[in-house]
Amino acid sequence: MNAYEAEYSKKTPTSARLFAESAKMHINGVSHNIRYFEPYPFVVKSSEGGCLIDVDGNRYTDYWMGHWSLIQGHAPKHVVRSLHDQLEDGWMYGAVNEQTIKLSKIISGAVPAAEKIRYTASGTEAVMYAARLARTHTKRDVIAKVDGGWHGYGSDLLKSVNWPFKEPESSGLVGADNIVSVPYNDLDATVKILSGCKSRLAGIIVEPVLGGAGGIPASAEYLAGVQEFVHGCGALFILDEIVTGFRFRYGCMYESMPLEPDVITLGKIIGGGMPVGAVCGADEIMAHADASSADRSYIGGGTFSANPASMTAGRVTLEYMRDNQSTYDRISSMGARARSGITGVLGDEAADVTGAGSIFMVHFAAPGKRHTGVRNAEQAASCDQDKLRQYHLKMIAQDGIFMLPGKMGAISSAHADGDIERLVAASEDFKRHRQ
Amino acid sequence: MNAYEAEYSKKTPTSARLFAESAKMHINGVSHNIRYFEPYPFVVKSSEGGCLIDVDGNRYTDYWMGHWSLIQGHAPKHVVRSLHDQLEDGWMYGAVNEQTIKLSKIISGAVPAAEKIRYTASGTEAVMYAARLARTHTKRDVIAKVDGGWHGYGSDLLKSVNWPFKEPESSGLVGADNIVSVPYNDLDATVKILSGCKSRLAGIIVEPVLGGAGGIPASAEYLAGVQEFVHGCGALFILDEIVTGFRFRYGCMYESMPLEPDVITLGKIIGGGMPVGAVCGADEIMAHADASSADRSYIGGGTFSANPASMTAGRVTLEYMRDNQSTYDRISSMGARARSGITGVLGDEAADVTGAGSIFMVHFAAPGKRHTGVRNAEQAASCDQDKLRQYHLKMIAQDGIFMLPGKMGAISSAHADGDIERLVAASEDFKRHRQ
Repeated sequence: MNAYEAEYSKKTPTSARLFAESAKMHINGVSHNIRYFEPYPFVVKSSEGGCLIDVDGNRYTDYWMGHWSLIQGHAPKHVVRSLHDQLEDGWMYGAVNEQTIKLSKIISGAVPAAEKIRYTASGTEAVMYAARLARTHTKRDVIAKVDGGWHGYGSDLLKSVNWPFKEPESSGLVGADNIVSVPYNDLDATVKILSGCKSRLAGIIVEPVLGGAGGIPASAEYLAGVQEFVHGCGALFILDEIVTGFRFRYGCMYESMPLEPDVITLGKIIGGGMPVGAVCGADEIMAHADASSADRSYIGGGTFSANPASMTAGRVTLEYMRDNQSTYDRISSMGARARSGITGVLGDEAADVTGAGSIFMVHFAAPGKRHTGVRNAEQAASCDQDKLRQYHLKMIAQDGIFMLPGKMGAISSAHADGDIERLVAASEDFKRHRQ
Repeated sequence: MNAYEAEYSKKTPTSARLFAESAKMHINGVSHNIRYFEPYPFVVKSSEGGCLIDVDGNRYTDYWMGHWSLIQGHAPKHVVRSLHDQLEDGWMYGAVNEQTIKLSKIISGAVPAAEKIRYTASGTEAVMYAARLARTHTKRDVIAKVDGGWHGYGSDLLKSVNWPFKEPESSGLVGADNIVSVPYNDLDATVKILSGCKSRLAGIIVEPVLGGAGGIPASAEYLAGVQEFVHGCGALFILDEIVTGFRFRYGCMYESMPLEPDVITLGKIIGGGMPVGAVCGADEIMAHADASSADRSYIGGGTFSANPASMTAGRVTLEYMRDNQSTYDRISSMGARARSGITGVLGDEAADVTGAGSIFMVHFAAPGKRHTGVRNAEQAASCDQDKLRQYHLKMIAQDGIFMLPGKMGAISSAHADGDIERLVAASEDFKRHRQ
C-alpha cells in the first residue's frame, strides 16, 4: 500500500467495512464496472451541490457528477421541488403522459434534428436502437465506430473500446463481426477502412467528444469528412450526444460544428440525472419504428421509458439551462481555467489536459517521454495510466476532490471558482510531492 | 367509430388534442410500442393509489399498474416520504452507495439463488446480460426461449414473441439465428427442439408465468423438465422473474415450485416502480462478470444502475411487503375473486380467465368456437383479440377501469374489494350489451 492508499484507508474505515459487505453481494463490489478503484471505492451516503459525502462524513468536491449526467450539481433545489410535487402524483404511469410531451417540446425546440424522439431507460438502450434503425434503413449489417468510442454495454457496439481496440470487450457476444472500428480524428485511415466495407455499411456512430476514452474533441473536419463519406455510400451518420448534448450549449454540439446527423442519441443531462435515454432523428428514419409497418424496426422503449419522474427532472433541468444560458459561459470558462491552470502547474511536456467547455482530463506523458498531445484514444491509452490513478487518488485522499480514477471531470453550475483554484493547487501539490 | 370509441372520445377531448401534439414528436405518439391503442390513448396527468387520472380529469381504476411494476399502487405514502428524503440527498451518485447495499441485503435474504446481484437500468438490460453470461459460461451461442416469451427489446432475445412465433420481431437485427424458440408448457416438443441444438445450447430463458403473452402460468412439471434437460446438457436455466419476482410471494416463484435456476432476472417491483433491473445468480456463474478476468462477460450496469432513488424506492417497497406478508394473501384472494367472478359472468365456454395470485387476464373464445382453455401463447393468440380490445375499451369508456387493451391486469394493495366487484359488474355489462 502506498502513502496515498494509507491516507485514504485511514479516513474511510466505514467505507472499508461496508464495501466488504458489498463485495459479498456484488461482483467486484460494484454495480458498474468502472466504479471500482484501488484500494476500494468509498461508499457514498449523500450528495449536495458540488459535493459527494461518504459514510465516514468525508466531503469530496465531485467532478464525476454522476457519470457526467449532472450539470447543476447534486439535488438542485428547483429540481427537488418539482420532483417532490411529481412524486406526490406518482412516478410510474406506464402510459402516455403530459410530462413527456412537455419535455419533448423543449428538446424539439433545442435540437431541430430530433424530428421524432423515442425515450428509453438508458443510453445503452438508445444506442442499441440507433444501430437497429441504421440496419433497417439500409438493409445492411455493419455498424462502424471509432477506436475508444464508448456507447454502453449493448451487444451491438461492445467492441474496440479499450486498447488495442481490436477485440470485443466481452465474451459471450454473437454478431461482433458486424462491428468495424476506425481511428478517431484520422480521416484518411477512417475512409480507407470504411471503403473496404461500404457495401455492407449501415452507419457509423461517433461521439463529438470522446468521453470514456478521455475527453478528446473530434476536429470539425474529421466529423464533416466522415459524414460526407457515409452519406455518399448511403449509410447513416449517427451522432452519440449522450455526454455532449446540453453539456456545452443549450442544445447539441452538431449544430455548432455544423453537422447533419441522421440519428442522434441523447441521455444523461436530458433526464436531469434521473434514468433516461433517447434516440432521435429525421422523420424519414424514425418512421421505420412505426410498430405497424411490415418491416418495422422494433425500438422500444421499455417499462420505464418516459416515466414522469425522469421526464420532470429533465424538463426542469433543461428549462433552467434555457433560461440561464450564461451558465454555459460560466462553467466553460471554469473549464478553461482548469485546463490552463493544471497545464501550467504540471507543465505541458509532462501532461496534456484535454477537454472542452466544462469538461477536462489530464493525460500524463508516458515515463521518460515528452508529451506530444492527445488527439485519439490510442494516444490517451499510451499515457501514464498509473500516474493518472495516483493523481486522482491523491486528490481523493488528501484534497477532498473526486474524479472517478482514470476518468474525465465535469464542472457543474454548483461548482465555485474556488473549487477550480483548489483543483489547480492540488495538481501542483501532486507534482511537488509525488510519491 | 363504434359506440365505445364515440363515448371514449366524448370524455377525452383534452387527451385527443394533446395526443395529436405527441404524435408530432413521437413515433405512433408513444414512448413504448404497446402504449398505443385505438382510437388514441388518453394522456395521464397524475396517479393516486389504485387510480390513474387523465388530463380531462377522468379517473380510472388502474390494473395496468405501470407495466405491473407497482404492488402497492401509485405513490404509496411511505415510499413518497422515503423518496422525498432521498431526493434531498441527491438521486445520481454514480458510485458505490449505502442505498444499494441496503436493498441488496433485502433481496439476498429473500432470494437465496441471488448469491451475486448486478443492477441495471431496465429489465431489457438484465436479460441481455443473462444471455451474455450463459454464452460466456458455456462457450456456446444459442439461447432458447419459449413462444410468446417477452424479455424486452434487447437484440439477443427479440424473436418469437408474437404469433406465429417464427420470426424476429424487428428488422435490423444481426445474430437472430442464435435464438431458438420452443412451445410453452409442452415438454416433449420442447425437449425435441432443444435436443436438435444441444451442442450449441448456452441456456434457456423462461418466465414462470407468461406475462406479455397473457398471464399464463407454466406447469411446475414443464419447468422442472426443462431445467433437467438443460442442466443435463451443460446449459444454463435462466428464470425471468422480472414480472413474477415479489409479485406472488415475498421472494421469487422458483422457490415455491421448487426450481434451481442458475441465473434470475429481476426488475419492476424490486425498484418500487422506479427504473431498475437486476441480473442475479450463483457465485460461479456471476464470477464471469469479474471485470479483471481475461475472458470476462462484460455485464454493466450503466450510468443509472444502482442510483439511490431507485434503490430507496425498491428497499422501502420490499420492506413493506416483508413486514406485511398478509398483503400477498389479500391481493391473491382478490385475484381469485376477479378470475372466478369474470368467468362466472362471461361463462367458461366464452372466456378463459388465466392468471395466478394478483394477476388475471381474459381470453375470449374465437368467434363460433367453444373455449378449450389457454395454456400457451399460441392458444392465447388464437382467441378473439378484437373482442378483448372492445372489452377493455368498454371499461375505459364506460366504467373508469383501465387495463392496457390486450394486456393482463395486476391487483395492488391499493385496490379495494369494491374495485373487484365493479370489475366483475363491468364484465357482466359487456356481455349483456356488447355492441
